[in-house]
Amino acid sequence: MFENRLKEALESVKGGEAVILMGFDGIPVDSYEASQRWDIETVGMEFSVVLKEARKAAELLNVGPADEMTIRTDQMATVLRVVSDGYFLAMALAPEGNVGKAKYLLRVLAPGLKEELI
Amino acid sequence: MFENRLKEALESVKGGEAVILMGFDGIPVDSYEASQRWDIETVGMEFSVVLKEARKAAELLNVGPADEMTIRTDQMATVLRVVSDGYFLAMALAPEGNVGKAKYLLRVLAPGLKEELI
Repeated sequence: MFENRLKEALESVKGGEAVILMGFDGIPVDSYEASQRWDIETVGMEFSVVLKEARKAAELLNVGPADEMTIRTDQMATVLRVVSDGYFLAMALAPEGNVGKAKYLLRVLAPGLKEELI
Repeated sequence: MFENRLKEALESVKGGEAVILMGFDGIPVDSYEASQRWDIETVGMEFSVVLKEARKAAELLNVGPADEMTIRTDQMATVLRVVSDGYFLAMALAPEGNVGKAKYLLRVLAPGLKEELI
């Protein structure tokens, strides 16, 4: 249903390895993997916990809802974008990948997905 | 002890509001605030929980240690950089601030701080 849009976004990002649209309950909606380097479902599930913590912290700090997060290790960069209260996008990139473009594309992609997910 | 270096880093970042060097136990080491827009100690404490979750998730995913994280809301962008197992840096920026430069400067700053914190 959403795979074409996920594929198009991923293929526009240098170093993009995989992207997933997932529920905050850890249930995947759709995904697209350009490589099998990581299991994007597991990545999404593990980092969904972190994103939920970020949203709780931002609420406590009263700085508006946390709608974007990036996590970087020496092997991987991951961009997470909240789509709605129930769903988020996660894109995993090689560490030298274009994180800025990933952020931009996920931000642009989110509103359309939100409309269709309701 | 570290305030001058924190001040220098913050003042080099467009939109930088405050920066803190803090223990993962939530105890502040040193901080510098260009404005009182947010309480950087509270920001550091709340987001330290998120950073710890990110480190746990990265360990489970076996993708190397999570050493950098950014969290964005409509009012604030925060860059977190791990200095050592015990300490991290957090810089809070206006949402239109230069997050890329903040990341770069914290990455450059961290090794020197690590040496002195042992």
